[in-house]
Amino acid sequence: MNLIKKSLLLLAAASAAVFAASTPSSTYKVQADANKDGVVNNEDLSQMASSWLGEDEGPKYVFFFLGDGMASPQIHATEAYLKQKLQADDPDNDLGASSLGTAGSELLTMSQFPVMGMQRTYADNRFITGSAASATAFSCGHKTTINTISMDPERTIDYVTIAEAAKDKGMKVGIVSSVSIDHATPACYYAHNGYRGNYWDIANQLSDSGFDYFGGGGMKGERTKNGSRHYAPGKPSAAPSNCPIQHAIDNGYTVCENKAELEAAAPGEKVFAYSKDYIDGSWALPYDIDRDPADASIADYTSEGIRLLENSNGFFLMVEGGKIDWACHANDAVTAIEDTIAFDNAVAEAYDFYLEHPDETLIVVSGDHECGGMTLGAAGTGYDTFYEVFENQTMSCDAFVAGPLADHKSVYGQDPWDNSVDMNQDIKDKIENAFGLDYDAVSDFDRAQLEDAYDETMGGNAVPDSSENWKLYGYYDPLRVAVTHIMNRNAGLAWTSYSHTAVPVPVMALGSGQWKFDGYYENTAIADKLADIMQVSLEEAAQ
Amino acid sequence: MNLIKKSLLLLAAASAAVFAASTPSSTYKVQADANKDGVVNNEDLSQMASSWLGEDEGPKYVFFFLGDGMASPQIHATEAYLKQKLQADDPDNDLGASSLGTAGSELLTMSQFPVMGMQRTYADNRFITGSAASATAFSCGHKTTINTISMDPERTIDYVTIAEAAKDKGMKVGIVSSVSIDHATPACYYAHNGYRGNYWDIANQLSDSGFDYFGGGGMKGERTKNGSRHYAPGKPSAAPSNCPIQHAIDNGYTVCENKAELEAAAPGEKVFAYSKDYIDGSWALPYDIDRDPADASIADYTSEGIRLLENSNGFFLMVEGGKIDWACHANDAVTAIEDTIAFDNAVAEAYDFYLEHPDETLIVVSGDHECGGMTLGAAGTGYDTFYEVFENQTMSCDAFVAGPLADHKSVYGQDPWDNSVDMNQDIKDKIENAFGLDYDAVSDFDRAQLEDAYDETMGGNAVPDSSENWKLYGYYDPLRVAVTHIMNRNAGLAWTSYSHTAVPVPVMALGSGQWKFDGYYENTAIADKLADIMQVSLEEAAQ
Repeated sequence: MNLIKKSLLLLAAASAAVFAASTPSSTYKVQADANKDGVVNNEDLSQMASSWLGEDEGPKYVFFFLGDGMASPQIHATEAYLKQKLQADDPDNDLGASSLGTAGSELLTMSQFPVMGMQRTYADNRFITGSAASATAFSCGHKTTINTISMDPERTIDYVTIAEAAKDKGMKVGIVSSVSIDHATPACYYAHNGYRGNYWDIANQLSDSGFDYFGGGGMKGERTKNGSRHYAPGKPSAAPSNCPIQHAIDNGYTVCENKAELEAAAPGEKVFAYSKDYIDGSWALPYDIDRDPADASIADYTSEGIRLLENSNGFFLMVEGGKIDWACHANDAVTAIEDTIAFDNAVAEAYDFYLEHPDETLIVVSGDHECGGMTLGAAGTGYDTFYEVFENQTMSCDAFVAGPLADHKSVYGQDPWDNSVDMNQDIKDKIENAFGLDYDAVSDFDRAQLEDAYDETMGGNAVPDSSENWKLYGYYDPLRVAVTHIMNRNAGLAWTSYSHTAVPVPVMALGSGQWKFDGYYENTAIADKLADIMQVSLEEAAQ
Repeated sequence: MNLIKKSLLLLAAASAAVFAASTPSSTYKVQADANKDGVVNNEDLSQMASSWLGEDEGPKYVFFFLGDGMASPQIHATEAYLKQKLQADDPDNDLGASSLGTAGSELLTMSQFPVMGMQRTYADNRFITGSAASATAFSCGHKTTINTISMDPERTIDYVTIAEAAKDKGMKVGIVSSVSIDHATPACYYAHNGYRGNYWDIANQLSDSGFDYFGGGGMKGERTKNGSRHYAPGKPSAAPSNCPIQHAIDNGYTVCENKAELEAAAPGEKVFAYSKDYIDGSWALPYDIDRDPADASIADYTSEGIRLLENSNGFFLMVEGGKIDWACHANDAVTAIEDTIAFDNAVAEAYDFYLEHPDETLIVVSGDHECGGMTLGAAGTGYDTFYEVFENQTMSCDAFVAGPLADHKSVYGQDPWDNSVDMNQDIKDKIENAFGLDYDAVSDFDRAQLEDAYDETMGGNAVPDSSENWKLYGYYDPLRVAVTHIMNRNAGLAWTSYSHTAVPVPVMALGSGQWKFDGYYENTAIADKLADIMQVSLEEAAQ
């Protein structure tokens, strides 16, 4: 479905949902009477909001979408990028492609949801959170320590996850991620471990969960052999004799290694599906900008999940867009934006399903933390924005480093590197082909940065060797960072970090119970709100 | 009232407000019946939300608070700063002041409002907006061009402002700002002009408005004589024969020049009040970090406004915290944070009033745009945060430049400046006294930046003379920028710009009609929502 058409449909459907949600039920009236003294506590408020639905059982179909590293700057940059494309493609547009003056930003499905709240993301022991602590917060409703997977801060108690509670209620459960399926965010729905890096254990817990569908990236734990699996104190799984994928097969899972096999899987089968021929060195799906059309997108994994999970007892489906975060760590704006669009396309699959089941469905979309310190303004461009410079990027920075840059190094690299060597036409061409950045058109200030970074790259200083390099390039190849920083600043988009930040993150909701997600709250409240709406409990420890 | 006590009260009162807002009125039932076909358009939705209040006339008391340059990063940085102070002051705190791990961020009044939505801020002709276009959006409900004061994009039609509509309805109207009262944001409530810089005209339109109370900064237009007043095409006021303050007196306004005179003014008087002895060169109040306790704060101007405006027909009061923006332009985090606290203290005055009139009051708080590209994470500090480095800043960067730095220059300045001169003990001491930054403790990388900036400062290059300097220092004194950038990065807070950015901005609401402010919408929707709730029309042009 094209985006414009979807927009129009969404407007009508969102309004219908509001109407449905605002019908008072008998429960609501009882609640109101009980509070005639005007004193309403938060619990009462929860019950009221829930009872506005007139659905005491909770919605039958619940989606939770998580854009890793996605906050308001990432969302609005994507909206402006799409608007820029529309303006550039419209022959009647007389505004000038560079103005972005009428950036309508009505183009993302998630942006049009009727409810938007905000969450504070900090962890139990750090202001700037990580994906394990944040995913524990919104899967279990508790703040925990950095790197902990659905356990308490001291890593002794297993918390109940919203996915486990849904399964216990009789719903089917699916987990989708564009990164490895044993990565921190998806793991926090099915696993309990003291350290996110214990991939072997976590991947084995995947099929111990009995959940119905796992889709997207592969199992990073597959590479980690028994015996070397504990990078840090953690909770070992029930010692399977095989590696995680075989353990899944032993546990009755159908393993699908490509899109065709996934499409052939039948409802009722328990499925673990991944893109065996396309996953990267971290067992994640490629960035969407680099994706082979033959490979399944995150939207495909979502729609297939819906097909496999739909049943009379309903389902809970969590979908993570995991590489928005990775692109933001690398300060690679276009790649982050393209992955945000891919993530929103997955949201759109849920939205299509919602249109068929508007009274029985809840869709919640959020991020776990901002990443990269992205902002939509730069010192050099001041008040102006020129997103047209983004139009000619053809690959991710990772793909540039693995492809053209590696080729260049193999031909022109010297050992030791001579810092007096300037960039030659080969690397200038490769940069222009990959990013649309014309070396000869950049300012003297920017050119000096490119040449410095080039020397660092060719000299092998990809890993920071000084305080200065750490600030300038983070853990990344210096030349790729210099190129995207210049491109991004020229566009009017800038970054402050190669890590996450503590900037609050929006929460968007549509459907039954949507109103509960209004306001400004802790990330833990997301789990509590979901549990209230779904009428399940997260209170007992599973151990 | 102290902050903690206020927090507890707010929780109870917000819940009570929710209870009141959720009671269906007869209008609501009619509306629901009329829509049994399930088709609800936006207008219906508006009416429903309004009728949930059971108040067809709209709330009697309406507050709109505007933090200029304030978005989620500014708000959450302030919350973390306050938490840091609490941790540092608590002898039982064993978390370490630097961890900020349990940053509760429950400390701002505005953050605890039950509703938080988000607005997209772009102007008619620019993605990154300015204060005039954004204030026109939320005062009149229309996108307009940069620098235009409550007129259409072509600057030929006057829009009706929400303040004018409130006045027409019979409510009293007050306008408060910490910057000059003829600055873009306050001007958009009472004036109509093609160019925000036409201060003489705008200041004269102030008292032509007949509004009841103006408080805070002075009139910048007072300095601009007739004849030289049109910096750009604009709409001249009805040619008063005197300067704006005399024109206000001629129009029946009592002019109060200090806090005592303001406190002596009586309800029924039309009042223009400012801090004559304290305003800066732009006729703005000082930054709150520099404020003399004898001078009125923005909270004082708010509470006095409430006292003067309260009447049986109700009031509309707009309050701008205008210098959050200025501090963010300068990338001066502590000063921006202290001004955000001062702004929140003004919100707290409205909140106290709300507690006395919970069924008749609406408070909306927002910003017009983010400023400075502030994010809560920096490349050098990675995932860590050290807000304790903020504890020892004793003055704003402006005050540093005007005081200690000017003193240093007068003693040690040479003409021409010799770039081989290193910073001496005098300037090192002055920096440490003002900012708590120890020159001898900074890294080599940072020290080199300080020395470069010092040479630029002492050489008189305060205004950027190159592409490089523009990116490094903006329009600001280089040394002050280098000092705060190092301080901020050491704290784990960073900036990308000296201008505004396009990052979306939260909208917080409490009281009658609060639910309307949920969701993700254009900044123009704020005016439309206020007009709906207040039952006034913004549709006719005033001309």
